[in-house]
Amino acid sequence: MRSRPARESVGPGLAFERVLFFSDAVFAIAITLLVIELRLPDLGEHATSDDVLRALQAQAPRLFAYALSFLTIGTYWLAHWRRYQVVERIDFRLATINLLLLGFVALIPFPTGIIGEYGDTAAAVVFYAVTLSAAGIMGTVSWLYADRTDLTVAGLSRHHLRSSILRGMAVPIVMLPSLVLLPLIGPGGVELSWLLIIPVQVLADRWRRTDDDPNSVEEA
Amino acid sequence: MRSRPARESVGPGLAFERVLFFSDAVFAIAITLLVIELRLPDLGEHATSDDVLRALQAQAPRLFAYALSFLTIGTYWLAHWRRYQVVERIDFRLATINLLLLGFVALIPFPTGIIGEYGDTAAAVVFYAVTLSAAGIMGTVSWLYADRTDLTVAGLSRHHLRSSILRGMAVPIVMLPSLVLLPLIGPGGVELSWLLIIPVQVLADRWRRTDDDPNSVEEA
Amino acid sequence: MRSRPARESVGPGLAFERVLFFSDAVFAIAITLLVIELRLPDLGEHATSDDVLRALQAQAPRLFAYALSFLTIGTYWLAHWRRYQVVERIDFRLATINLLLLGFVALIPFPTGIIGEYGDTAAAVVFYAVTLSAAGIMGTVSWLYADRTDLTVAGLSRHHLRSSILRGMAVPIVMLPSLVLLPLIGPGGVELSWLLIIPVQVLADRWRRTDDDPNSVEEA
Amino acid sequence: MRSRPARESVGPGLAFERVLFFSDAVFAIAITLLVIELRLPDLGEHATSDDVLRALQAQAPRLFAYALSFLTIGTYWLAHWRRYQVVERIDFRLATINLLLLGFVALIPFPTGIIGEYGDTAAAVVFYAVTLSAAGIMGTVSWLYADRTDLTVAGLSRHHLRSSILRGMAVPIVMLPSLVLLPLIGPGGVELSWLLIIPVQVLADRWRRTDDDPNSVEEA
Repeated sequence: MRSRPARESVGPGLAFERVLFFSDAVFAIAITLLVIELRLPDLGEHATSDDVLRALQAQAPRLFAYALSFLTIGTYWLAHWRRYQVVERIDFRLATINLLLLGFVALIPFPTGIIGEYGDTAAAVVFYAVTLSAAGIMGTVSWLYADRTDLTVAGLSRHHLRSSILRGMAVPIVMLPSLVLLPLIGPGGVELSWLLIIPVQVLADRWRRTDDDPNSVEEA
Repeated sequence: MRSRPARESVGPGLAFERVLFFSDAVFAIAITLLVIELRLPDLGEHATSDDVLRALQAQAPRLFAYALSFLTIGTYWLAHWRRYQVVERIDFRLATINLLLLGFVALIPFPTGIIGEYGDTAAAVVFYAVTLSAAGIMGTVSWLYADRTDLTVAGLSRHHLRSSILRGMAVPIVMLPSLVLLPLIGPGGVELSWLLIIPVQVLADRWRRTDDDPNSVEEA
Repeated sequence: MRSRPARESVGPGLAFERVLFFSDAVFAIAITLLVIELRLPDLGEHATSDDVLRALQAQAPRLFAYALSFLTIGTYWLAHWRRYQVVERIDFRLATINLLLLGFVALIPFPTGIIGEYGDTAAAVVFYAVTLSAAGIMGTVSWLYADRTDLTVAGLSRHHLRSSILRGMAVPIVMLPSLVLLPLIGPGGVELSWLLIIPVQVLADRWRRTDDDPNSVEEA
Repeated sequence: MRSRPARESVGPGLAFERVLFFSDAVFAIAITLLVIELRLPDLGEHATSDDVLRALQAQAPRLFAYALSFLTIGTYWLAHWRRYQVVERIDFRLATINLLLLGFVALIPFPTGIIGEYGDTAAAVVFYAVTLSAAGIMGTVSWLYADRTDLTVAGLSRHHLRSSILRGMAVPIVMLPSLVLLPLIGPGGVELSWLLIIPVQVLADRWRRTDDDPNSVEEA
């Protein structure tokens, strides 16, 4: 099990699992805390059904922000999940990089609340895009670090690595350049453009499968 | 362990466990966040015991909403728990469907707060019923997907599958049709009718045991 | 592994672990959410160090409530932890009883907030004592159920069972009778009497060890 | 596996893992709850991008507090993670000490909120430093207890123990003495001095590696 001379790293076992379960817990809490931003204003004692309905409709931008952040954190969790299927050892530095990734993930409810409230302002859109992108980029950094320091399974194909990076970077790849268009298409247009994240991910998945020689990973 | 030619799915092991523990964490947080809606109004510096008692009594509808949502999320968790006793492999799509299920579960504290506050309005009742039902339906979708794509243990009986679906669908089966009665019996009557969820679940459990040929699952 | 003819129960393995980890997550969230009740009032833009100090001192009752609830939930978690060292199988009913226990545990931040704010009123003291005791009693119910239905390890001594019940019941044993003294010694006196929980627990621990024949559990 | 005659302690297995996963959950929730303190004030219906930007800039001290507390809790988690790589048994007392450690960790969002809001007052700085240091000290206490009662792996070197204590104590070692300088350099200067935590940790890591005879731990 400890075949490679990795410097102070832990392989399969409890210490390895703790890093993943701790990460899962932070992802799970961040994704569930998003709901705290959803809250009707006080409608008074004698609120009618119409009052409630209108208040719910007024929450539409926040519900949109909830869905967007939920999908982003969910996507990041899925990327994390996939990544650690081929990372088989963790050293102190990787645990630290992972912690920084979690720091950005845990921050996401904050810009989500802001974009839900002030989604028609450029400042909210920029802050949201930058925070979510930072989390995506940290995920890729951890991926590259694990690859460079041979913490991944033996025989991991370059193709697998590259397509996974593309998928994990789908959010920053779409969100960061979209900010350039802010003066042209406004905050609403920029937010709409983020739907492009979905085709980028689908593309990454297809590309991944193209020459996904089944041996490349499985033989490890 | 990897006997069936499942496309990029993971069987028993850490990656499989992570999906379940991540799900458990989201269920646990959603169920525990419900308590945040319970909060006495500010009663001032010199509140008497009677003031506190009256404020507590005024929380009765919210406590009812807490109990109802707790039981629903608890029921969904139990269904998830049972389901993954016979699902033995997870692929990327099942992980994604599961994520959407968690998205609805994590949302439940929001309609719970609304029905606790405005439970006498039709809008609150409809929104609550629709959100909770959506979570129940997504659970069934994940169940059907796992069955169709052979991610379940070999030899899973049709009877087991059907009775489990009935149990997992108890909430939408009762809540969605109850909304039709809204103009007749009002929000209070509809909420009362939700007590029918309990007999439906008991029935599903009995039906399940009727011809539960012990071999059907265990032989796997 | 499946030696005893237990009706649809799960023994060592993932399904068993999920119940424990789900419970751990609910305990952990309930215990951590307590901190949300601690919050300084808005002291304005130009708050001095003395203002902050006075505001912190005014939080003393809430800090006391935080500590008390933290220790109670912690005690319940330790009891749960110990209990499931000798419970080796879980059936659907035990999972359901456990869920009800978690429902009371998850509720604890609510009475904690109330007693932190209105700890000088009888209503707050009664509500707090009843909720925390309910959680303690449900823990014992789950314990008795597991024992009756042979879900525990073989050879569990009666002495072990009884001393564990005593320890797990320390909170209700002290808190519920203390309420009788409310008219005599007032809310403050009753809260002070809760310090008796500590000697009761120490006693239970000593009693436990008296004839703790090491074989009784370990031989299983 | 149960070679040493430890009094009622649990070694590798589910009960051992539960203590770690429960701890991970509390760390994860405390670290994620920090974000709740970040919240823009209500900017009204017609907030402009500049309004949002200014409100974000006004959050800078809170973002700093978020980062500082995130790094501290993260550091404590990493220390916990490392520690339990060489602690191989847990008894009831260690579980209780660990619970007290978690009690201080779970409290951290409270002083974080205060220092984020009133970071220019001495009271906020003292309260923050004392709470975070208390958590660090409890971690060391658990470490020493495990060492004294032979709950650690056999052959743990004194050097490993001492360098780990130094690293885990980096926060109290810097924060507590810094309070003496409060009258001289003011709250801002004291907070700035906390950057010294980083070099202390780096030093501890270097010292650790100096004569880190690889056999000392691994041979266990």
